[in-house]
Amino acid sequence: MNYQPRPEETQSILLDILRAPEQLAPLSQFAHCDADLIRQVLGEAGKFVAEVVAPLSAVGDAVGCRFEQGLVTTPPGFKKAYEAFWQAGWPSLACAEEDGGQGLPAVLEGALYEWLSAANHGWTMAPGLLHGAYECIKHHASAELRERYLGKVASGQWLATMCLTEPQAGSDLGLVRTKALPRTDKSYALSGTKIFISGGDHDLTENIVHLVLARLPDAPAGPKGLSLFLAPKFLPSGERNAVVCERIEEKMGLHGSPTCVMRFDSANAWLVGEAGRGLQAMFVMMNSARLHVAQQGIGLLDAAWQKADAYARERRQMRAPVRAHPQEAADLIAEHPAIRRVLDTQRAWVLAARLLACQTGIELDLARAHPDAPRRAAAQRWCGLLTPVLKSACTEQAFHGASACLQVFGGHGYVREWGIEQIVRDSRVAMIYEGTNEIQAIDLLVRKVLADQGTDMNALTQFLADGLPAGAAGSQALADRLLRLQQATMRLVKACTNRPSLAHWIAGDYLRAVALVMLDWAWARIGAQPIAGLETSEPALAWQRWVMPEFNMRLAIIEDALALD
Amino acid sequence: MNYQPRPEETQSILLDILRAPEQLAPLSQFAHCDADLIRQVLGEAGKFVAEVVAPLSAVGDAVGCRFEQGLVTTPPGFKKAYEAFWQAGWPSLACAEEDGGQGLPAVLEGALYEWLSAANHGWTMAPGLLHGAYECIKHHASAELRERYLGKVASGQWLATMCLTEPQAGSDLGLVRTKALPRTDKSYALSGTKIFISGGDHDLTENIVHLVLARLPDAPAGPKGLSLFLAPKFLPSGERNAVVCERIEEKMGLHGSPTCVMRFDSANAWLVGEAGRGLQAMFVMMNSARLHVAQQGIGLLDAAWQKADAYARERRQMRAPVRAHPQEAADLIAEHPAIRRVLDTQRAWVLAARLLACQTGIELDLARAHPDAPRRAAAQRWCGLLTPVLKSACTEQAFHGASACLQVFGGHGYVREWGIEQIVRDSRVAMIYEGTNEIQAIDLLVRKVLADQGTDMNALTQFLADGLPAGAAGSQALADRLLRLQQATMRLVKACTNRPSLAHWIAGDYLRAVALVMLDWAWARIGAQPIAGLETSEPALAWQRWVMPEFNMRLAIIEDALALD
Repeated sequence: MNYQPRPEETQSILLDILRAPEQLAPLSQFAHCDADLIRQVLGEAGKFVAEVVAPLSAVGDAVGCRFEQGLVTTPPGFKKAYEAFWQAGWPSLACAEEDGGQGLPAVLEGALYEWLSAANHGWTMAPGLLHGAYECIKHHASAELRERYLGKVASGQWLATMCLTEPQAGSDLGLVRTKALPRTDKSYALSGTKIFISGGDHDLTENIVHLVLARLPDAPAGPKGLSLFLAPKFLPSGERNAVVCERIEEKMGLHGSPTCVMRFDSANAWLVGEAGRGLQAMFVMMNSARLHVAQQGIGLLDAAWQKADAYARERRQMRAPVRAHPQEAADLIAEHPAIRRVLDTQRAWVLAARLLACQTGIELDLARAHPDAPRRAAAQRWCGLLTPVLKSACTEQAFHGASACLQVFGGHGYVREWGIEQIVRDSRVAMIYEGTNEIQAIDLLVRKVLADQGTDMNALTQFLADGLPAGAAGSQALADRLLRLQQATMRLVKACTNRPSLAHWIAGDYLRAVALVMLDWAWARIGAQPIAGLETSEPALAWQRWVMPEFNMRLAIIEDALALD
Repeated sequence: MNYQPRPEETQSILLDILRAPEQLAPLSQFAHCDADLIRQVLGEAGKFVAEVVAPLSAVGDAVGCRFEQGLVTTPPGFKKAYEAFWQAGWPSLACAEEDGGQGLPAVLEGALYEWLSAANHGWTMAPGLLHGAYECIKHHASAELRERYLGKVASGQWLATMCLTEPQAGSDLGLVRTKALPRTDKSYALSGTKIFISGGDHDLTENIVHLVLARLPDAPAGPKGLSLFLAPKFLPSGERNAVVCERIEEKMGLHGSPTCVMRFDSANAWLVGEAGRGLQAMFVMMNSARLHVAQQGIGLLDAAWQKADAYARERRQMRAPVRAHPQEAADLIAEHPAIRRVLDTQRAWVLAARLLACQTGIELDLARAHPDAPRRAAAQRWCGLLTPVLKSACTEQAFHGASACLQVFGGHGYVREWGIEQIVRDSRVAMIYEGTNEIQAIDLLVRKVLADQGTDMNALTQFLADGLPAGAAGSQALADRLLRLQQATMRLVKACTNRPSLAHWIAGDYLRAVALVMLDWAWARIGAQPIAGLETSEPALAWQRWVMPEFNMRLAIIEDALALD
């Protein structure tokens, strides 16, 4: 069974619950983006994903990418699907019209990538970095580079990579050693080895645009010495650049995506943005890239849930404690509480996380272009705080929830044929890349919450508390939780001043507490305005019974840590 | 880095803390098993595991088992290692001396299998079922069958399988359809298809002894119609029996173990035990088999921890909040709190679970042969309650803890070369086989605790509470937890009488609560009598700070479920 996007669910979240067109109305560039257009785009996207991309997931895993004589071959069917993808204009969905794009809001692109990842995580890695590269080139590259590369990257005719990691420099990019020596013609000679480069080489497009972090000869040590360079696989002259794929990694999963070791041998490159400001040039796209990873997690969890749900409605084993059909020798496993609980819990995660990710996608657009400065600031605050939370919580749940869905299959889950174990293997990487989940937690608590004494976080939670419908079911419980989170935040701000380690010990608990209360808010939104055509009472109950108790546990762990000396 | 058993840890747990020789002293057959012999056996076992079995783990995963023309070939080196294993007498460690065994207690065999699984889970599957088959044949087979098979199975010269599962009958063995038609010579013609048969075919031994659940022609439907049969690969005449390996499964992991689809085509078979009592004949070995799976989990977690611990002591990234060596550009990741927490937590699980599993191994022997009836009954109570708890909790932690250890490696954890992702893939199956973890939870709560109104469980917790050293650190907290578990048990007994579903919804939470408090008891034992030569203050603290808070959460979930109608 291949993954099947359900556009009507996302449409209802965007239109009925979040009222996306109204939220985006103040942004003139999205004036054309009304409910009809949103429905149409999502409908078409769903069809493309189901018909073209989803059927290639199993072959992508089984055959995988091959590496021969310095070149990468992608699995059968991948190239044709990618050509159909870019020729239909999907990569440029959220690129500006002046760059040949469709000028649609980021939130629609996010929905597309959620489904693509659910359908075929490996394949989706290839176009996954395009939009980030587009933003990076658009905002930082010289006019000459833009002229040469922006259109091709916007359209997806050429794919792009981000070359950051080196063997000794993973989470710590300050340790990057790749060198860039200036030549006489404004270009640079780039030398060094980069690892874990997704799509470093492949046969999907005729050229590949590498964005590479490196050091100029006189650069200081550490992150401030890093500059960003653009090095294409083929030079404007048509010649092959000295960019060599040395090998591809054997991985736990994600076999449809080539993870390359790339060697730059005095490769021709050009500076993007200012010297010494390479990290800033890349961080322009950090929030949207991390949100994309969160949406990969949501998609993969949804795909796992779809498989388990379908299996549980067909497989009969043992008698359930309460029997709907006593004449059968055994009941559907979907009728057994232990299985019901797993299915309802994953469904609860998918729906709430999707709603929260959609709102965060809207906030990304508002943060860039809302005409009203306070609203822009509020949107920036939302994105800064929610992005690490969603990246970590959604990828964590993708892996653990997919494993729970595997369990629904019993022994059949452990063998390849049902495809559920592939989701467990594929999803695992999302807890690591684009900043490990531990880095996300430190980003949230240390770099954001503690850095401004909790001001932004408490403003956000207060904003959510103020918007709760008085008297609605669950409103009081949520209001209490928001208040307790505020109190914990303030106690942490106070305690961490003199205890530099403390925040690092419990950053993960703090992030989980924030994630749970934000997703609880998402459930309150669904409670106030149901998703059209969807019965959500069981997932809603599962959320409160089986998931939310973790909130108290996380706060208790934080309190205990505060109490220790 | 290959797994390295640490015999001195297990020696200290068995001798200093649990005083195994004293506990086993009333059993005359173990009179020779003194501290010196235990040290010697464990020391030799550790050497064998490290030198012969551990080096074959990576090749087992990479090459895997192959299936050609109906025959299975195991990975390079497996056959030679197995020959060395049985010729050195390891399979018969805990077999009776009269059967050619060494007559040692089950607890030593358990320690050996923990290390074997840690070193090479796939290889260890082959001898993993031997002892169960030995017990089954010894206690249920006819004199003629015993004469023919017992010695060969005890020595490991021939390997054995358990053929239970069929495509439509997994957790629900009552649905088994394989038929046994009586022949005129006391033998039976066995026909049917069995799936998920570990070691159904292989090249490790010259014969394979299959124990098969099947139905006689006049058998009633359901589990009471099942009988047990023995069908060898090669008949006593030397002819090949009509037992066909149809294929082997492609799996998520455990590639070193062939998981076979076996077809019996009127195969020659003999009844083992009474007709209609097939499940009882197999269940004789259930507790020890499940304890073995728990010990696989402990071993795999230990292997993951060893790898992550070694990596964290070599890899430098970023500055820790408190710096031991401010002159370095970056600190060891072992010095970062987020990593420290993962490592200490897994270490805490390994040590406590190992202690608890060792005591359960001792109780298994006491339950069989203690001369004093009340002590025998107490041991049976311990085994009945602790076995599902350990099987579920240890396998759950193996997978999730190995995943946490993978995270320590960052992106390097997701690629094959470090071997950590193999442990995540291999360990996943242990949550499923030998009764899924959901079945374990139902076994504990529904079939054991509720079935006797909580009498045994509360007797066990009271016994532990009574043995706590008054005034010792943590004793009061543990006593409180034991009391709260007793109270929760009694409330459940009362509430479940009229609500048949209730226990099925929260059986998993109840099992976790029991597991945590039992492991907390194990930590109290380590607190009272440290493991020789081992500094355990950090894992002990990690246990209380990061693990035990889940206990309150589980009780809260149970309380909430009780409060709902």
